Amino acid sequence: MALSEFGLIARFFTQPLKNAVNQLGIGDDCALLSIPAGYQLAVTTDTMVEKVHFFPDVSPYDLGHKLLAVNLSDLASMGAQPVAVTLALTLPCINEAWLTDFSAGFLALAKKHNVDLIGGDTTQGHLTLTVQAFGLVPKACALLRSTAQIGDWIYVTGTVGDAGLGLKIKQGYVCDNPSEALLQFNQPQPCVAEGLAIRPFAHACIDISDGLAADLGHILEKSAVGATLDYDLLPLSAPVQRYIEQTGDWALPLTAGDDYQLCFTVSPENAPLLPIACQKIGQIEAESGLRIQRMQQIITLQATGYEHFSG
Amino acid sequence: MALSEFGLIARFFTQPLKNAVNQLGIGDDCALLSIPAGYQLAVTTDTMVEKVHFFPDVSPYDLGHKLLAVNLSDLASMGAQPVAVTLALTLPCINEAWLTDFSAGFLALAKKHNVDLIGGDTTQGHLTLTVQAFGLVPKACALLRSTAQIGDWIYVTGTVGDAGLGLKIKQGYVCDNPSEALLQFNQPQPCVAEGLAIRPFAHACIDISDGLAADLGHILEKSAVGATLDYDLLPLSAPVQRYIEQTGDWALPLTAGDDYQLCFTVSPENAPLLPIACQKIGQIEAESGLRIQRMQQIITLQATGYEHFSG
Repeated sequence: MALSEFGLIARFFTQPLKNAVNQLGIGDDCALLSIPAGYQLAVTTDTMVEKVHFFPDVSPYDLGHKLLAVNLSDLASMGAQPVAVTLALTLPCINEAWLTDFSAGFLALAKKHNVDLIGGDTTQGHLTLTVQAFGLVPKACALLRSTAQIGDWIYVTGTVGDAGLGLKIKQGYVCDNPSEALLQFNQPQPCVAEGLAIRPFAHACIDISDGLAADLGHILEKSAVGATLDYDLLPLSAPVQRYIEQTGDWALPLTAGDDYQLCFTVSPENAPLLPIACQKIGQIEAESGLRIQRMQQIITLQATGYEHFSG
Repeated sequence: MALSEFGLIARFFTQPLKNAVNQLGIGDDCALLSIPAGYQLAVTTDTMVEKVHFFPDVSPYDLGHKLLAVNLSDLASMGAQPVAVTLALTLPCINEAWLTDFSAGFLALAKKHNVDLIGGDTTQGHLTLTVQAFGLVPKACALLRSTAQIGDWIYVTGTVGDAGLGLKIKQGYVCDNPSEALLQFNQPQPCVAEGLAIRPFAHACIDISDGLAADLGHILEKSAVGATLDYDLLPLSAPVQRYIEQTGDWALPLTAGDDYQLCFTVSPENAPLLPIACQKIGQIEAESGLRIQRMQQIITLQATGYEHFSG
């Protein structure tokens, strides 16, 4: 069966618009959004490439989920409420079973967050997937990387290193209880509610998709400050603790990517007001650089996490 | 020299924001846009893939220009004023000379239209380029595909078939005067000013990037109407006329893609008010389908232009 570009998008991805921000969706030259007065539009884009960002044998459902999740996570880290996404699909061929599962994973997460797919493009080539996500944030309220203050406490919203462990399991590491780590790796949940909840209290925020050390490093660089993390305060799941005991790879929770927790800074005065469960892991300091306090030692970490094209 | 993902984007693409709509650009998890009261945001995305949308030996300057032009053309066809773009670059390797020329072509056209590059993503893989473009249009004023009216006259903003001839020349056709056709193929100019100018008068509008017949067909389908075009009224450049005389390929101006003129419909009462040079080429009718009047014959064209994945 031959499907045209337009038929393909229509068949697998077109859904009625549900979010009132979106006035016109798939089917014209552009989509149209109406932004409520007093709000800014937050925009982010992320591309995932086969063999770079995911294995060729990935479940299409998981891939659809994760592609959207990583973009919603960028909105979450700004404290923005997701409203819409576009999808640019480059596919080697039309595989209807694959598209059915991929769109199911993508659209299930979209529905969960009241996000409409408002447009896209479908082209032929090596499997390359680009999502653009849109969110609303009240003017001058977005959580930036550049606004950490000296003396702020540093928090994360949940355990770190689980997705990194999931990758190790995919690569052959044998784990007694692999399911949670694999779930974090395959179907990460963006911390949208957490981003909205901390927005009135936090100074700076980022999602730790490139690894805690690298992403906190972006906050430090953009805010022209430094920090010390207390390694013993890092929230670690039992399988990650076990992995570190067995391998000695204690840096995994700091350097492994694909965790989609938020890392944010809060003044000590505002800390008691935080409305979500989260873990204090360190403090912002005037001295530049990122230091890790571990076993009575201070280590300056040369960790940049995962960067494409880095040599 | 090793360049990180962030360094790459910063080095070749970061420019100071110039359009007041854009409040935060490259360098955080999201960009932030402030949409003026009374306006909607128009959003479009297009992907270009090597060997599908462009030849491997394409000039990187031309490629940067064209990638942005095709997206600005989608904004133009809605009557939207461009304000911002994002760029998702998937590159096989870092070639600094290539990036220098590509970004020069991209940014020159962006500057011409007062468009800021507000974000993006850079990944490694087969050369795949996705742009998302943003524009402003007063609420309820966007030019749609679905609003053509029976009796409307059909117009195009300029000559058709030139880019198609450019492609023929690239494929070996010998033309006495190839430069204009090649320019239309390599560096099309989006009809942004034309889209803004006709917005108060036109009913429906589309850009003819997939070919006049296919794209007018979208208007007909979405508006649930039909049309007859008068072939003798089509504005053709002298090289395209010569090509048709030599080859007999009279359908080229109807079916060749990559023209970025606008095709739009206007009531006969509004036609005298049109503030731009443009050519009437036919009329919207109640009977569905697209008919071509040529040499005292009516031909119902089975032309769908260029669609990816079509079989």
